[in-house]
Amino acid sequence: MNNYAVIVAGGSGSRMQSAIPKQFLLLEGLPVLMHTVYRFYESMPDIRIILVLPADQFHYWEELCATHSFRVPVQLVQGGNTRFDSVKRGLEKAGNTGIIGVHDGVRPLLSGELITRLYSEATEKGNAVPCLELSDSLRRVGSDSNHPEDRSCYRLIQTPQCFGAGFLKAAYQVDFQSFFTDDASVAEHAGARIHLVPGEASNLKITTPFDLEIAGVLLKNRPLLRRKVL
Amino acid sequence: MNNYAVIVAGGSGSRMQSAIPKQFLLLEGLPVLMHTVYRFYESMPDIRIILVLPADQFHYWEELCATHSFRVPVQLVQGGNTRFDSVKRGLEKAGNTGIIGVHDGVRPLLSGELITRLYSEATEKGNAVPCLELSDSLRRVGSDSNHPEDRSCYRLIQTPQCFGAGFLKAAYQVDFQSFFTDDASVAEHAGARIHLVPGEASNLKITTPFDLEIAGVLLKNRPLLRRKVL
Repeated sequence: MNNYAVIVAGGSGSRMQSAIPKQFLLLEGLPVLMHTVYRFYESMPDIRIILVLPADQFHYWEELCATHSFRVPVQLVQGGNTRFDSVKRGLEKAGNTGIIGVHDGVRPLLSGELITRLYSEATEKGNAVPCLELSDSLRRVGSDSNHPEDRSCYRLIQTPQCFGAGFLKAAYQVDFQSFFTDDASVAEHAGARIHLVPGEASNLKITTPFDLEIAGVLLKNRPLLRRKVL
Repeated sequence: MNNYAVIVAGGSGSRMQSAIPKQFLLLEGLPVLMHTVYRFYESMPDIRIILVLPADQFHYWEELCATHSFRVPVQLVQGGNTRFDSVKRGLEKAGNTGIIGVHDGVRPLLSGELITRLYSEATEKGNAVPCLELSDSLRRVGSDSNHPEDRSCYRLIQTPQCFGAGFLKAAYQVDFQSFFTDDASVAEHAGARIHLVPGEASNLKITTPFDLEIAGVLLKNRPLLRRKVL
């Protein structure tokens, strides 16, 4: 029985004020996406990694692999126009048994402990979705007003979001709905009850230059995550 | 006409796994709270700084000021049992004109630009509250279920939260309500319409060892904020 990681990286560099898509920006000399891929390979060497990229980035990825002597085996899949389409295409390459974790390519700093814990909890409970409590107050904003919400009732949701393979593949056999913001929302629509588990503050999503700065520092301070990649 | 900063620091070290209250942990050799106080002094030298501390920390603060030759003038006020009580006591020392910004003592990395912009917007609009968009998905959790929320409808709320002095002092003349999670919620209860303005990702609240690590690095990378304090 195989487990799978569907790693989705369709971003552009727009919010980064960079011509380079954010998944290819360098973190301690290595592209963000390679860190991400390596985290899965390192913690679960038998995992099958499905990497969903825009078709026009395949060649660049292969060049980067040559440049960095990066030899972790991944299956490249052409992304769609939306995250939903991209995940759906990635899932088509996975089998029907084992656990599939769907992960943002620009979250390179998750620990191996988080990965193995999520796959293990998903095996036991059907799914596992990492989350964090909020440390700031929260407001809901409308078109011309806003009001406070009780932050203790909310969780910030991270990835990898892990599900039984057969269930998740079936769940994605639907038309896109506007409330499909992540895999948990798709699984829920198909009847799953989402099992939230504690995530990691360091498992941040790199979307701004500030995030990249933070990630660089965190990596410097974590020799384990900086270990030479193959 | 004076402007005021009511800086509230009542935290213990519990979430930090530290015996030292988090406001006194060292950031680049200087206690977190001194960085915070200095940010206001540096960007608005005429501001009156009211520092609300637990009474049993007054002596320690004074020792720290001596140790670090920290001479920014602050008025010490004894904190209450809750944040609401502490702010209320701080406000009693402020005048009725000008702008009062209420700030978390453990947010030491805000820029001078943010401070002056907030006081300026509050002068113009009556209040100004800094906020950030969410980069993670959001779920609302109940006792035995959870469901997704549209993150674009929410904002994470920071401090300093700035209000006309007379208005805020009057707004705090109420009994505590469970939905008073910050100053904006108190002001709103008194009839204010909250004016949200963009905050800063680096204006983080230090509540965990991870936050302290991030703050340390950010400070290292920002010579302007590292400048010798007096």
